[in-house]
This record gives sequence, C-alpha cells and structure tokens, in this order.
Amino acid sequence: MKRRDFFKNTSLTALGAAFLSPAELFAFNRTRETAGSGKIAKNIIFLVSDGMSMGTLTLANLLLQRKEGRKSKWIEMYEQNRVSRALMDTASADALVTDSAAASSSWGGGVRVNNGSLNVGPQGQQYKPILQKFKSAGKSVGCVTTVPITHATPAGFSINSDKRSAQEDIALQYLSLRFDVMLGGGLEYFSAHKRKDKKDLLANYRQSGFSVLRDRSQLADGLGWGKRPVIGVFHEDGLPYSLDREQDPALVASIPTLAEMTTQAINHLSKNKKGFVMQVEAGKVDWAAHANDAAALIYDQIAFDDAVKAAIDFAEKDGETLVIITTDHGNANPGLFGADSNFDKLHHFKQTNDWLLKGIDRSFSASKIIERMEAAQGIVITKDEAASLLKPYETMDSDSLYNPYKLPFKELADIQSKYTSIGWGGMNHSADHVELAMFGPGSERLKPFVKNTELHNFMLEVAGIDPKKTV
Amino acid sequence: MKRRDFFKNTSLTALGAAFLSPAELFAFNRTRETAGSGKIAKNIIFLVSDGMSMGTLTLANLLLQRKEGRKSKWIEMYEQNRVSRALMDTASADALVTDSAAASSSWGGGVRVNNGSLNVGPQGQQYKPILQKFKSAGKSVGCVTTVPITHATPAGFSINSDKRSAQEDIALQYLSLRFDVMLGGGLEYFSAHKRKDKKDLLANYRQSGFSVLRDRSQLADGLGWGKRPVIGVFHEDGLPYSLDREQDPALVASIPTLAEMTTQAINHLSKNKKGFVMQVEAGKVDWAAHANDAAALIYDQIAFDDAVKAAIDFAEKDGETLVIITTDHGNANPGLFGADSNFDKLHHFKQTNDWLLKGIDRSFSASKIIERMEAAQGIVITKDEAASLLKPYETMDSDSLYNPYKLPFKELADIQSKYTSIGWGGMNHSADHVELAMFGPGSERLKPFVKNTELHNFMLEVAGIDPKKTV
Repeated sequence: MKRRDFFKNTSLTALGAAFLSPAELFAFNRTRETAGSGKIAKNIIFLVSDGMSMGTLTLANLLLQRKEGRKSKWIEMYEQNRVSRALMDTASADALVTDSAAASSSWGGGVRVNNGSLNVGPQGQQYKPILQKFKSAGKSVGCVTTVPITHATPAGFSINSDKRSAQEDIALQYLSLRFDVMLGGGLEYFSAHKRKDKKDLLANYRQSGFSVLRDRSQLADGLGWGKRPVIGVFHEDGLPYSLDREQDPALVASIPTLAEMTTQAINHLSKNKKGFVMQVEAGKVDWAAHANDAAALIYDQIAFDDAVKAAIDFAEKDGETLVIITTDHGNANPGLFGADSNFDKLHHFKQTNDWLLKGIDRSFSASKIIERMEAAQGIVITKDEAASLLKPYETMDSDSLYNPYKLPFKELADIQSKYTSIGWGGMNHSADHVELAMFGPGSERLKPFVKNTELHNFMLEVAGIDPKKTV
Repeated sequence: MKRRDFFKNTSLTALGAAFLSPAELFAFNRTRETAGSGKIAKNIIFLVSDGMSMGTLTLANLLLQRKEGRKSKWIEMYEQNRVSRALMDTASADALVTDSAAASSSWGGGVRVNNGSLNVGPQGQQYKPILQKFKSAGKSVGCVTTVPITHATPAGFSINSDKRSAQEDIALQYLSLRFDVMLGGGLEYFSAHKRKDKKDLLANYRQSGFSVLRDRSQLADGLGWGKRPVIGVFHEDGLPYSLDREQDPALVASIPTLAEMTTQAINHLSKNKKGFVMQVEAGKVDWAAHANDAAALIYDQIAFDDAVKAAIDFAEKDGETLVIITTDHGNANPGLFGADSNFDKLHHFKQTNDWLLKGIDRSFSASKIIERMEAAQGIVITKDEAASLLKPYETMDSDSLYNPYKLPFKELADIQSKYTSIGWGGMNHSADHVELAMFGPGSERLKPFVKNTELHNFMLEVAGIDPKKTV
C-alpha cells in the first residue's frame, strides 16, 4: 500500500478546518523535513512589537475581526498553519522583568546583560552585535523603528554601550558602522542644536556618502539610493502614534508607516546577492502600554501587523527568508474585561490619550474637556471625571505640559476603562513569557520554549554561519 | 546518499539545545508522521486551569524556578519539545468575554452558547455533552475538580441546563447519568439540609450502587471501587486553596489534592478496556484570579501542574492517551511588574488573602491586622494600610463576613502589589487568546490557532468516533 493510499484509508479523515487532515499533515511534515534538510536562510527579518503582552496581540486581532471582518496577519498565519511557535523567557541578567536594552541585547549579543546595558556585561565585557556579525559576513543589514533609531531595541542589534541613554553617542556609532538602512525617529540625537557636541550629524552622514531621508516622499522615491547606505530620520522623537497620524494630513504627508519603511528597507537590502538581515520594531506599542493608552496601543499593534504582512509577502515570494515575529517583553498586561459593546467604542476613536492630554492646559474647563474627549474618542465622560482629569493641570507649570510623566495618563485610563472595559495590570514591563512565531527556512527547528539569548546563535546558524567564527 | 547521511553532511549541525538538530528534527517529524498515520487516542485527559491568563502560567513557572530550581511540568514539556501548541479563541455565542459555562459547553457540546448556559442554545436547542457521547461509545468517563463537581466546567462536559446556577438539579442529573468518576467539592448541592427538595442525594447515590467518597482516606484506599461508579464530595463548597490546605493538618487529612484525585480517577477509569475520557479542572485558579489573590492563584496553578504531571506520567506509559492542557479563558491578567526580590516574597506566604480576610472581624485593631498579615504572608504593612483594610469591616454585619464580595479583596491586592509587584488588570474574565497544549496520539493534528468549539469534534475524531453518528 502506498503511503498516500494509507492516509486515505485511515478512519481519521474529515477533521475540522482548524485541524490537519492526514493528507495535510503528510504534506506539512514533508515541507518541514525539506525545509529542515539543510536549507539556508539567506535573509532574516526580525520583527519586534515592543512591550506586547498577550492581551495586546489579542485586542488587535479582535478589533480587526469586529471592525474589518478579518484576522490579524499574525493570527491568520497561525490559522493557516504556516508558522512555528514558541513561548519565550524574556528575563535579563539582573531581573525577571527585562528592559528593552537587555532584551534586544539578548538576541543581538547572545548574552544576558543587566537592564540598561547594550551588549556590555557587568564587568565591561563587549559582545559583538549580530548586525555587525552579519555585515562582516557580507550581508546587508539594517533597522527600522517607530521610535528613535538610536533607541534600545535597534541599538541592541547594532552597537555596544553601557548606557542605553547614550543616544547621541549611538547616533555617532551608526555613522562609522555604515549599516545599509537605518530608518526611524530621533532627530534630536542627530541635530546640531540639540546635541551637546553641537555636531550636525546628518551633514556628516551626507559627507560620508549616506543617503539621508527626512520625510515620507523621500522614502517613497528611494532618492536614487543605489548601493549607498541610507539613514532616514522622520521626526524629532518617536514617530506619532498611527491613530494620531491618520488624523493629520501634514503627518500623513511627512511620516511613513512602519509597513512602508519595512517595504522600502527590504527593497534596498535585497539588492545584495549575499542576502540581508534586518530588525523591524513597533516601538510605540511599548510607549502606549506604559501610558495605558488603549487606542494608541491597539492601532500601533495593527500598524505592526501591516509590517508583518509586508515581510511575509516578501518572504513568500523569495523563499529564502526567515521571518521571526515576537516581542521583547510584556507590558501592562491589558485585557478586555467586559462587554463587546464597550470594546467596540474603540472603532470610533480618532485620537489617542496622548494627543488628548497633551492638548489640555490649565485654561480648560471641565466642559471643554468633555467636549474634547467626545470629539476625539466618542465617549462622554461625567463632569466629575472631567474635573479629576483637569486637577493635575491646575498646579502644572508650562514645562510640565511637555513632561508626559506629569500628565494624568493613569487617571484617564481608569476613567476610560469604565467605558471601554479595557483594564491594565500596571504601567511597566511584565515578566510574562511571550509569543514568538517563525516563518520560512529554519522555522522548523524552533522548539516550543526558548530563552531569548538562544535566538542569537539560532539566527547565525540557520544563515549558515558558524557562531564560533564570529566572536 | 542516504537520508541520514544527508543530514550528517549538512552545515546545520550543532544548534543550541533549545532548537532541533537535523537528526532530532528528522526523528521528530518521523514520530509526528507515525502518530498522525491513523493512530487512535483510546483515552483522553482534558485538563483545564480555569481562568488562567498567560501571566498565571508564567508566574507559576517563575516561582518554581526560583523557589525549587525547576520548571513547571507544562513548560518543561515545551522545552523538551514533546507537545503541540495552539492559541485558542475563547469567545461565547454572545460575548468576546466568555463565562465558564459557555466555555466548557463549547468543548462539551461543540456549539457556542450564551454565557450562563450549559449546552443549551438561545432557542432551547440541546447539544449532547461529550462525556455522554463517549459513555454511549462504551468508554468510561469522569470529571475531577477543586470546585463543586456541579460547577460550570465539569457540567459543560456532562449535562444540559439553561442555567449554570441550577447546581442542585445538576447533582440530580449526575445520579441518572451514572458517570464512572465524579470528584470535587459542593456537598451543599447533595445534602438534605441544604437542598430545597430536602433530598439526601448521597444516600440516593449509595442506593443506586455508587461508591460515595467523603474524605481523602476513602479516596486513597479506593473503597473497593470495582466497576461501580464513584462520586467523591470532599467539601461544602470549593475545596480549600492549596496553600491554606497545607497549613492545616485537618484539611491535609480530609481533602485530597487535585493530583491525587486525578491519579485515582485514572486508576479507576483505566480499568475499562475500551478506554476513558475525563476532565480535570483547577477551578480555584479562576476564583483566586477573581479575588486578585496572588498566592492562592500561583499555588493552585502549581497544584494544577502536579495534576498535569500525573496525567502525563500515565500517558507516557500508556501510549494511547491524548492529554489536552489548556484554560477556558483568561482572568484578571496578572503579571509581575517589578523587582525579583518582591516576587520572591511569595515563597514565604503561608496563607492566602482569602484566609486572611475571612479571619478578620470588626473587633480587630490595625495593629492586630498588621500582625496577622505578617504571620500569614511575611509582609509588614503600614498602619494606614491596615486601617484602610479594617474600614469595610466596621460597617459590616455578621452575615457580610461570609459574603466574599463584601470583603476588601481589591483593597488588599492593591496594598499587596506594593510589596510583591504583582499587578492585576481587573477582577473579571478577559477576552485574551489562551494557551493550549496537546501530548500523545492526535496532538500532531493541532493547528496553531483554534476556536474553542473545534475541540469537540477533534476529540471524537482522534478517538475514532464519527461525530455525525453521535448527535
């Protein structure tokens, strides 16, 4: 009896669509065997939704289901059984609750370091970052993010620094590294009037032969990039939240989406016949979680999902690209704890809490806050609630208006929870084990539970590089 | 070139321990193919940690790592790559946030029903529960739980009722169903002086030929069970939390652990040559999450993990048993949001918040509360914190002391968070997608994302039963 006939004759046919039929299982394992039989990942795209608790992944998927009648790309890949999955232990060297610097370093340098450090051990040990290793091996490399390109997560793949806060120095390090594409925010770390050393760093990048991109149209036309390295810095600090960007034509014109940056970076990096390795970070998912800002969080997670789609679209055609999709740690553990109708209010949000609170000042009355909130989010809060939001502004000097830590994010989230049923476990990173998915050559080797550090050698080895020769 | 040689010659050897070597991958896929080539699951053990958010699974694993230097069995199975995993969509017919009745019905009856219903649709449709189907097919069946055996989760596998609250009626239904093993709490639904109909139901069970177990020693000696059906009711309501039980020799003597009940149930059910199907529920994980009671939650999750081990130990030897490990929904989305040293305080907890609060009355002073908390949990709270805990008791009549909804669980959790860094997103179920793992024959068919309802036909089919013939 032939194998295929055997499967036909088993009593186990006709399982539901969410489960594998024997024929599908056979085909699936065949694919996995082939993929596992020595096929090299020429390219790697490593996508990070920074600070994404399980609730964040869920809420984005549920909102898309209810608002647009579709699943997120991430979950769709699961439904179609096209990825391997793992849970990941995200601890750093000195804490169960990691920060983004130590987390990215665990992947980037392969060693757990203390929170706040970038590929530098407690005794000053330097661990060579993975993009430097891949660059030495002849591949093109790059990072794309919605926060400053000098921020912890891209930096953890790129450089060594004992302080993640040394972003001006990191901007300088990038100049000499000459990575092929670096796209994100953080102009303040490059501009003469903000830097302590008064250097006009982007001028230096230009002089060194970089293409320098400053807005979305420059990203779109490619600026005749050729083989030159590219740096794109699209905003002073982090890029605006996706939801706020959508409401402001000037921002839509000037700021690219994460998916657009991802696509253009892939276009540029894939010119190299030896392949490429890149990191894509939805950094403001983490910022939104810190602020308990539900709409900022969910719509930026959806923007991340669009970038996942861009990466998968390329990888499907290419056939030699490993796509890794994960987060560096949980943050705030949000969840929907109540009625569907409350959750559905988020369909109609036009602006984030960030936008809402930053536009209030002590001249506001309670009724003006009620109006502002109704216009921005379709929710009519009570006078008492508005008064409690206004209170912190009464004693605030004008500088504090620009200090988000002084704005009543927690108070607004608590009020909002009554209307949206979104709850928050805290305003910090959590120790939760997190979700990891892989697509493409090498993905068949993923075991269901991994330590974050294990991904370092994994990436090298599936790309056919002996880690011992890269130190 | 032979297949095995080919693997030896690939450059992709020596991957880290957390990832599959090519030889391992080959062996793994071989196993999956064999397992998938028509092998029937003679037995199914379905384990539910009720109301387990990802944070709950994580916290139990991290506590075991730090306190005992070992991983949870659940996570260890992942590390050893011995299970298939999925995320599960837990919604009910009428809400993204399900209750336990609708959730268990989704598996038990294969159809989403409204919250509060047990295998009864909104127009009164009756969906035959899966344990009745398996019983008709000649298998032994049963349920084990730490909450009343008449509670939503076991009932969802067992009976039809348009109201989950009809627990006295459910206790009656069990009598005529004559399932092989039913073990848990809920004496109040069986006893003459608590039931509205004044029936001494356990006497009726005895008259009908059941073995009736009332304490741990009776469970241990098996009572000459033979082939008789067994009902074990070990406590008035839910069984005590694992942590509180450990502190009280009388409870240790009278109340079995979930693992003990699981092992004895397996011993009894596995006498049937046609196989068995059972559900095991850690029901008080959900109760602890509702109360934001960290130690109750984590130590009951660990007790669940011991039951997982008991099931896996049997399934490993047996070779024909599918083990499903999951939860019905998230609850409260707890997380560790701060220092390891705060988390480690939970090692020294002797009692739950439940025990703590139920032992306070209006005669207490603030300093007496401080002493009680230090003795029970090793934490010294401030006088102000103690006073705020005491406040609700001041206006409480004696009946309220027995109403947990009136006790200051939330206030205590908020105070405790400062010391333990455990945070909570709410006190209700969440809509989070949840974790699902499978071990044994059939597990190879699991796709990475499933709807809860899909498990119904899945269980029938992997057991070689055509779902169409069971309606």
